Amino acid sequence: MIIINAKFTITEAKRAEFLEEVTQLIEATRKEDGCLSYELYESTEQVNVFTMVENWRDEQAIEGHNQSPLLQQLFKNMPEYAEKETVLNVAKTIA
Amino acid sequence: MIIINAKFTITEAKRAEFLEEVTQLIEATRKEDGCLSYELYESTEQVNVFTMVENWRDEQAIEGHNQSPLLQQLFKNMPEYAEKETVLNVAKTIA
Repeated sequence: MIIINAKFTITEAKRAEFLEEVTQLIEATRKEDGCLSYELYESTEQVNVFTMVENWRDEQAIEGHNQSPLLQQLFKNMPEYAEKETVLNVAKTIA
Repeated sequence: MIIINAKFTITEAKRAEFLEEVTQLIEATRKEDGCLSYELYESTEQVNVFTMVENWRDEQAIEGHNQSPLLQQLFKNMPEYAEKETVLNVAKTIA
C-alpha cells in the first residue's frame, strides 16, 4: 500500500472556497480505481492547517489519480488559497 | 524518513480526556531524538475521528519512541477512549 500525506496551509480568507473545492475532489477520488481511503483532516493546534491522508493500492492507482481534472484544478488554484507551500510525502507501507 | 499515520476513533464522552492526554504526549514526543514532526489532526467529516501524522528520521527513533511512558499509558487507556480500534500504518518515504 502507498500512503500520501499532503499538508495544506490555507489563508483564512480562502478557507471556505478551499473546502468546497476539496469536498468535490474527495467525492470523485473515492470512486477511483485503487483508492483505499482519502480523508481530509484539520490540525487540532492550528486552524486552516489541513492534511489529506491518502491510502492507495499501488503506484498505478496514483498515476490514474494524477490525471484527475479536479486534482489538477486544485493544484492550479493552490497559489491563490495557500499561506504556505503544500508539503507532500509519499511512502510505501512497511508494517 | 518514516511516516506513521495512527487513526483514533474516540467516544464523545472521552474526547476531552483523550485530548488532554494526547497533548502531553505530543509535547514530550516532539523533544525525542529523531522526531521530525508529530501532529494531531481531526477529520473534517467525522467529529472525534483523529489521525496522528508522524514523521521520523529512522526505525531507531521509533524504537526510542515506543519506550515512551506517555505513549504506553495512552495505548493502555485506549480501550476506555476508543469507539473503534486504532488503525496504524507505518511507511517509508519513496518520493
